Amino acid sequence: MTRLLILGGSDAGVSAALRAREVDPSTQVAVVVADSFPNYSICGLPFYLSGEVPDYHALAHRTADDITSQGIGLLLNQTARSIDSVNHTVMITDKAGVAHHIEYDQLVIATGAVPFRPSMMAVDLPGVFLLRSMDESFAVHDFLSTHAPQSAIIIGGGYIGLEMADALTLRGMKVTVVEHAKSILKTVDASLGKLVSDELERHGIDVVKSVAVERIAQEGTRLEVMGSGGFHASCDLVLVAVGVRPLTDVAKSAGVEVGDAGAICVTRRMETNVADIYAAGDCVETWHRLLERPTYLPLGTTAHKQGRVAGENAVGGTREFAGTLGTQVVKVFDLAIARTGLRDDEAVLAGYKPHTLESTFWDHKVYYPGAHPFHIRLTGDQVTGQLLGAQMVGHVSGEVAKRIDSVATALFHQMSIDGLNDLDLSYTPPLSSPWDPVQMSAQAWQASL
Amino acid sequence: MTRLLILGGSDAGVSAALRAREVDPSTQVAVVVADSFPNYSICGLPFYLSGEVPDYHALAHRTADDITSQGIGLLLNQTARSIDSVNHTVMITDKAGVAHHIEYDQLVIATGAVPFRPSMMAVDLPGVFLLRSMDESFAVHDFLSTHAPQSAIIIGGGYIGLEMADALTLRGMKVTVVEHAKSILKTVDASLGKLVSDELERHGIDVVKSVAVERIAQEGTRLEVMGSGGFHASCDLVLVAVGVRPLTDVAKSAGVEVGDAGAICVTRRMETNVADIYAAGDCVETWHRLLERPTYLPLGTTAHKQGRVAGENAVGGTREFAGTLGTQVVKVFDLAIARTGLRDDEAVLAGYKPHTLESTFWDHKVYYPGAHPFHIRLTGDQVTGQLLGAQMVGHVSGEVAKRIDSVATALFHQMSIDGLNDLDLSYTPPLSSPWDPVQMSAQAWQASL
Repeated sequence: MTRLLILGGSDAGVSAALRAREVDPSTQVAVVVADSFPNYSICGLPFYLSGEVPDYHALAHRTADDITSQGIGLLLNQTARSIDSVNHTVMITDKAGVAHHIEYDQLVIATGAVPFRPSMMAVDLPGVFLLRSMDESFAVHDFLSTHAPQSAIIIGGGYIGLEMADALTLRGMKVTVVEHAKSILKTVDASLGKLVSDELERHGIDVVKSVAVERIAQEGTRLEVMGSGGFHASCDLVLVAVGVRPLTDVAKSAGVEVGDAGAICVTRRMETNVADIYAAGDCVETWHRLLERPTYLPLGTTAHKQGRVAGENAVGGTREFAGTLGTQVVKVFDLAIARTGLRDDEAVLAGYKPHTLESTFWDHKVYYPGAHPFHIRLTGDQVTGQLLGAQMVGHVSGEVAKRIDSVATALFHQMSIDGLNDLDLSYTPPLSSPWDPVQMSAQAWQASL
Repeated sequence: MTRLLILGGSDAGVSAALRAREVDPSTQVAVVVADSFPNYSICGLPFYLSGEVPDYHALAHRTADDITSQGIGLLLNQTARSIDSVNHTVMITDKAGVAHHIEYDQLVIATGAVPFRPSMMAVDLPGVFLLRSMDESFAVHDFLSTHAPQSAIIIGGGYIGLEMADALTLRGMKVTVVEHAKSILKTVDASLGKLVSDELERHGIDVVKSVAVERIAQEGTRLEVMGSGGFHASCDLVLVAVGVRPLTDVAKSAGVEVGDAGAICVTRRMETNVADIYAAGDCVETWHRLLERPTYLPLGTTAHKQGRVAGENAVGGTREFAGTLGTQVVKVFDLAIARTGLRDDEAVLAGYKPHTLESTFWDHKVYYPGAHPFHIRLTGDQVTGQLLGAQMVGHVSGEVAKRIDSVATALFHQMSIDGLNDLDLSYTPPLSSPWDPVQMSAQAWQASL
């Protein structure tokens, strides 16, 4: 009987726990959870704050009961403080600060990530918020309920920033997004970022680019945001969403090695450098299948997969994490924006000779009602013809999310761009065209060489 | 300069023409088209007859001008009658029956398929229709306009039958579907066919199964349909949609070989047994990538691909058709029904030891509004774990069509069912879950072994 201890009760931790019990039902599994919300959907927080999800309990991927009914012990409201890897114990403390020790045979570190808290952004001021944990989410929710703010400035034009811009607009607030780069949603190229920017503006949001926020100050009941180039605006609520960093303090206490981005170094079996300690999720480096090296790319999908691999291996398995392609999608108002693989600039850094072509097609036969433009940027190597990546923007009804998945599956198998034309994809006029737009873009890419 | 002659102006023929000109712009290409509607979307006919596409001209994938502007000659309203493969000439006749001969260096036969016309179904009676060509479509359209029929019996519960049941219901007609098998939409297993049947009934359609139609008769202005088991019903309009057969008379005049289903035998380069004669589309046998043998599986997607291969090779290329997986999707009211690869019974015939598991998930995180059940039947080999096929039924908003495409892409690469879990697929709560339903079904499949 293996005693498996898991530090962290979000996607990676709970996936590891479930998989270990599935592979070896004799395993004794305990999960240390820092709050009372195991396995909550962090990605769902914007929809709770928009009002689309009225009851936050619905955000649980699995309830505590679901988890414990699988024979998994939950240690709620406990925080892991340090690991003694020689004696195989972890010190944890409860909310009152009372410490105790837990023994383990195998340990999985799944402590996740926390939002960046740039000091000049004064995130401790009333009305200024981060958004990652349930507690942070409740704080925003309470503020919305009790202060009825009319305006918000969101610092950061990434996924969370844009989903929250959508959410707060839906609540009737006047929203401004401030992004330090020249283009929002930097996971896609600027020409597609422009489409997203247009969509925000169409919904009444002010999008401010190329502004680095320098200071947030309180002026009476208002918040003042000052930034580069003389930027100055005031509002009732500020949300700081400028990225996350891996949470690895406990890991380091055991001598676990971290890499450049501060994330835990792991093998593809999710082993750390310390015996009997695995790590998974937003606190670890992620093997990139195309780059063939570790990156820091925290995503829920990856956390689930890595957790599952760690859980299987912690009870004697030998499974390898197959690697990320960076596949992701976000919905912003009526648009879905997706990507997989490498963009041009990333491909150059990786030693490829990329060529990227942007083309636009209808998402289904235009004669059938409800067709929308589907924008795709396809990246391939102009020497070998290898498919390297795709970025897509289309209407949320246009199956963008699952179109990127076909390309991700093709990338997984190192297909060429020309090879995409050989794929037997589905067609009916209300949903696609005889050549799927992905294939039409492959043909256009080749013709543009 | 190659003189390329193409017999047939639908998907395969026009794809061949375009590809030949693209690969070798010096090619002189002429396409013989039996009517005046080159490259019309046959799959779009139900949407014209439903009224969703008000102007039939919109059904053209490309207009005649689009095609001729690519330097392709169109011989409209001409029918190929016979081929002299020794002298490299084809005899064609115009509507008036006047014959002339055209020389070719390379020939592509893309004469397509025609509907089965079972003799007992009296398809020559007024009010009884087939539906494949534009002319047949116009005949139905005229009848709808001039006779304002209130009720219809559709014989055949396949794609066209169900799309037309949807279309005529949308026009306000009372529709009955009569299917000779025990279940409708035989491209999917009966349990999924039942879901489709339920959807039809929810929209007021009578679905009659296990009835073989034996006779159609005219009684005054009404049509009487009699079938096995004492079936007897009357209506104002009958549509016979019981499948198609390849049109190969002209091909046979050249000594071109046909196979079991009566379709033209071709190599994977789309060559027939006769020198300088290629064939593609609904008139040919289709290489099946999993079965590794020819099948008869006429689909628009395949016709485009085969035509493109034939066109490329006719001007000196060496491209191979990669094979079909039978990937297809159809929309019926609010459902999308899709499949790829083999079903259990087909896999048994092919020598596999299949296991099929049906499971149901939400098409996106259920906490986000608008989630619907997503039903999936996953088939794999229980000895090797190889993925063999999938069938899906879900809401039309649930990205069913492009979900089948990920599986089709995985099948293309001979993945295992377990391997599906390694795919880096996209996720955002409004569009999926951290494990896509396809992956959750893969996990359920493995657990069920």
